[in-house]
Amino acid sequence: MKLTGIIAYPITPFSFSGECIDFPVLGRCLEQLINAGSDAIAPLGSTGESAYLSQKEWEAVAAYTVELVANRVPVVVGISEITTSQAVNKAKYAESIGADAVMVIPVSYWKLTDQEIFDYYQEISNVISIPIMVYNNPATGGVDISPELLVKMFYEIDNVKMVKESTGDIQRMHKLFELSNGELPFFNGSNTLALEALCAGASGWCTAAPNLLDQQPKNLYESVARGDLSAAQTIFYQQLPMLRFIVSGNLPRAIKAGLKLRGIDAGGPRKPLRGSQPEEDALLQSLMKVG
Amino acid sequence: MKLTGIIAYPITPFSFSGECIDFPVLGRCLEQLINAGSDAIAPLGSTGESAYLSQKEWEAVAAYTVELVANRVPVVVGISEITTSQAVNKAKYAESIGADAVMVIPVSYWKLTDQEIFDYYQEISNVISIPIMVYNNPATGGVDISPELLVKMFYEIDNVKMVKESTGDIQRMHKLFELSNGELPFFNGSNTLALEALCAGASGWCTAAPNLLDQQPKNLYESVARGDLSAAQTIFYQQLPMLRFIVSGNLPRAIKAGLKLRGIDAGGPRKPLRGSQPEEDALLQSLMKVG
Amino acid sequence: MKLTGIIAYPITPFSFSGECIDFPVLGRCLEQLINAGSDAIAPLGSTGESAYLSQKEWEAVAAYTVELVANRVPVVVGISEITTSQAVNKAKYAESIGADAVMVIPVSYWKLTDQEIFDYYQEISNVISIPIMVYNNPATGGVDISPELLVKMFYEIDNVKMVKESTGDIQRMHKLFELSNGELPFFNGSNTLALEALCAGASGWCTAAPNLLDQQPKNLYESVARGDLSAAQTIFYQQLPMLRFIVSGNLPRAIKAGLKLRGIDAGGPRKPLRGSQPEEDALLQSLMKVG
Amino acid sequence: MKLTGIIAYPITPFSFSGECIDFPVLGRCLEQLINAGSDAIAPLGSTGESAYLSQKEWEAVAAYTVELVANRVPVVVGISEITTSQAVNKAKYAESIGADAVMVIPVSYWKLTDQEIFDYYQEISNVISIPIMVYNNPATGGVDISPELLVKMFYEIDNVKMVKESTGDIQRMHKLFELSNGELPFFNGSNTLALEALCAGASGWCTAAPNLLDQQPKNLYESVARGDLSAAQTIFYQQLPMLRFIVSGNLPRAIKAGLKLRGIDAGGPRKPLRGSQPEEDALLQSLMKVG
Repeated sequence: MKLTGIIAYPITPFSFSGECIDFPVLGRCLEQLINAGSDAIAPLGSTGESAYLSQKEWEAVAAYTVELVANRVPVVVGISEITTSQAVNKAKYAESIGADAVMVIPVSYWKLTDQEIFDYYQEISNVISIPIMVYNNPATGGVDISPELLVKMFYEIDNVKMVKESTGDIQRMHKLFELSNGELPFFNGSNTLALEALCAGASGWCTAAPNLLDQQPKNLYESVARGDLSAAQTIFYQQLPMLRFIVSGNLPRAIKAGLKLRGIDAGGPRKPLRGSQPEEDALLQSLMKVG
Repeated sequence: MKLTGIIAYPITPFSFSGECIDFPVLGRCLEQLINAGSDAIAPLGSTGESAYLSQKEWEAVAAYTVELVANRVPVVVGISEITTSQAVNKAKYAESIGADAVMVIPVSYWKLTDQEIFDYYQEISNVISIPIMVYNNPATGGVDISPELLVKMFYEIDNVKMVKESTGDIQRMHKLFELSNGELPFFNGSNTLALEALCAGASGWCTAAPNLLDQQPKNLYESVARGDLSAAQTIFYQQLPMLRFIVSGNLPRAIKAGLKLRGIDAGGPRKPLRGSQPEEDALLQSLMKVG
Repeated sequence: MKLTGIIAYPITPFSFSGECIDFPVLGRCLEQLINAGSDAIAPLGSTGESAYLSQKEWEAVAAYTVELVANRVPVVVGISEITTSQAVNKAKYAESIGADAVMVIPVSYWKLTDQEIFDYYQEISNVISIPIMVYNNPATGGVDISPELLVKMFYEIDNVKMVKESTGDIQRMHKLFELSNGELPFFNGSNTLALEALCAGASGWCTAAPNLLDQQPKNLYESVARGDLSAAQTIFYQQLPMLRFIVSGNLPRAIKAGLKLRGIDAGGPRKPLRGSQPEEDALLQSLMKVG
Repeated sequence: MKLTGIIAYPITPFSFSGECIDFPVLGRCLEQLINAGSDAIAPLGSTGESAYLSQKEWEAVAAYTVELVANRVPVVVGISEITTSQAVNKAKYAESIGADAVMVIPVSYWKLTDQEIFDYYQEISNVISIPIMVYNNPATGGVDISPELLVKMFYEIDNVKMVKESTGDIQRMHKLFELSNGELPFFNGSNTLALEALCAGASGWCTAAPNLLDQQPKNLYESVARGDLSAAQTIFYQQLPMLRFIVSGNLPRAIKAGLKLRGIDAGGPRKPLRGSQPEEDALLQSLMKVG
């Protein structure tokens, strides 16, 4: 499996009370992302509120997604766990149900040393045979993985095959490129950096934006891929206000609010997260018209 | 209950494999903290690896501690949960077993708004009748609660009765004092700020240091309380190297390493956290001699 | 000369157009600071707009101040220069007119290495025989001098005799104390940290506050010095709103505005700095009543 | 005048003692930059140690440069002054000797408010009729000018015609583009961001790199301009190690060291800045071979 392009992140829909997962709505969301030309589907990421689900819920969403996508595109299952043993368990489960890869972010309470981070991924790699995408996002997970460590893990841990970089710092991508002589595939996870990351050599863009912008993110990827920088600029600046909006609060709130405006009621995010407020809905409505 | 003085944090000991809690060792640790003159015991805090335990383990530690302390001093049970519903469940459990108070830190994946933080504490307060200590520690929990919000919750949420401030920023304590006209009891949770926090009016010091320094933290508190600033300075600078050491990595690692040097084998912290390395043990040994 | 206590900072008054220095008003300000019980006077500091004056103006203010103070208290002349040669020239001049000490901050455009900072002070020390107070204030000068370097310069450069620490980070003071075994006299330059710095062992407090608060800063110093922590807390919290106000914008603007309310027209700060706005004056008026 | 492309920054060479400007060497440097295809020459920038020169030296360098360049390309003279009146004087002088534009950075001691920054540029604009490039570089000047204020000044102050953005934050450039609908010409001043800034729509790249890399920066600009993204990536990653090196310390030190390796002795930077150390020279030598 060689991933490139748009890796799309579905939300996890809840029924009104927030207690049950609404699988029919999840199905609609997944179909819409596939229709938007997504090159892979990544359930249970930050957008999917992975960290807020019980073990059973997480398993149910993973299994449902793999089954529904049915190999039309690869499925990359997200894991965000504080303990190594829980992360290991989820990785094994993901492989067992037929996931194509796992995307793993080490959530922290106490900050982790480089050795602790390395061991965390090593132990996960030891128990599975599908690829691992290392996900670096200190703003959510609380752990910052340096480019040097990312490249080291790529070369030294068997199943570490790619990186999702979400710090928003383009210099990190430069470093990944240089330290691996362009060998380590890195994906951009910072929405407002999409144009520049692709220009700097990113393999693709991990994003929840297709939930609201359909094929526009894919269009940006393709215009850069074919070297049409002028078109890429135009496409990027068109969607930038929406990209900025969805990352200004938290992604689940913004995407769920946008889906509702599009006729899909996915409930709100799980408490303590709150759903969107009226002023956000109004702004979102205006952004969706423009897009 | 009006807390002042030293609130001491036990570790959670594991058997060698890291899988089981070692209750006899926990008992020894608790007795030692009581013998050190602690004014309260706070199991399942940051030092106690609260966030790394399963629900069942957490319950077992809470229950064991309340029973063993047996009202000799108050027990303040720590809760660090990402979802409101889990925090609510733990708070109810803590009250049910006879805890004197709960100390609650809202762990985040997505950052929380002020309203989300307020609602989180409000929902917990709604289901219990024991006091809540709001614990602010953005470095571990990922949420930063402003002094303004802390004071607002103190006045508006029934069971919010005190604050543990661990940012290490003394200006936050000034603000708490001013905004509440000195009414809101605040505790210092930043070990290397102990002297100044007490001088600025903190009600006490939440610390794991008594695990290794026995009565020295209490001596600092008492020297400030009786206005002997000269003695307080001397006592503080004596223990400062040790305080700096235990917060330089993570508290569970440092405290467990120190306990081992004192003859108590509490195992290592839970993975991905690693136990202390030989060079740390050597440094720790020298610090314990001095103290 | 062994300095302790309150080192007071006069403003540099300008005539209305901002082009000429108003020496009679400077004289009034200096007398007022001496009357407030200041233990030393430090013209041409941050408050004195040292960096905004021409060489000739700077010399005139220094000479006028030394003459008017006339050895009633020591005079510590401020130097904030980007080039070593200019700093050297000013240090020589200060000694030539009878200044008791110089306080030197290395203003930067390009950040300085530790060796560059060391050499800067060494060259100044080489040409004078009066004490140098090293002034660390990265927020204004753009250079951050670590505690380790401060202590090294204290021991290795002849005339470096004391430090003014203005980062507002109490841990820096702890380090100065520890690294020099309490030998290096350090002064606090962060107004809102005054209580804690003195409790942590600072030799004194460098402040412009006596311009508006008269003897209150001295009262704080003395209450800590005699070990009356309760009084110190009361005095500190009384003046804290004013201290916070004067550092919220820039000191020259705030102090000049306050002096005007007290009947002393010292003009505005030099452009591009602007004088206070009406809403600031109103707030200041209310703070002065309380003080 | 409509600037695009590479705006090249010469150093200011000093004779060995650092006291005199070496004009013949300056002449050689300027010729080399013109030969490298630079689209404009910008003396007295950060690289030119503008802030370290006396008024007379600054004037002499400006006049010499304008005369020697002799309209072959535009000359953009750098001004970095702490007081408005000094900046005004220099701007008038620059126009009087025939400079094509001025690039102005407001050096700070006390931080400036938006209104103070606006007035600073307004007063400069009032006395000249040549274009002003607003230079934002908080790391050196200590003032951070927001995209909102940059766009406001572009529309409201007559001679503000373009911006040099050196924060290294690509999001600032996005904002400049959006807030002005692409009307405000912005130049990139962060060397390691060159590829992405041009891809995001920058008019050009302000850089000292041509001193050591000759036509390579121009080649990058041109490959982006003609839409050859693949070539641009290759060219950028080739020069990135050198770009990173020259910004790792300070530009004058790095460029002067590199020129020496190329046979041009421009002396060291002015004290307190130190010249390069042997290990830096060795690294530089290896980077120049590769380039």
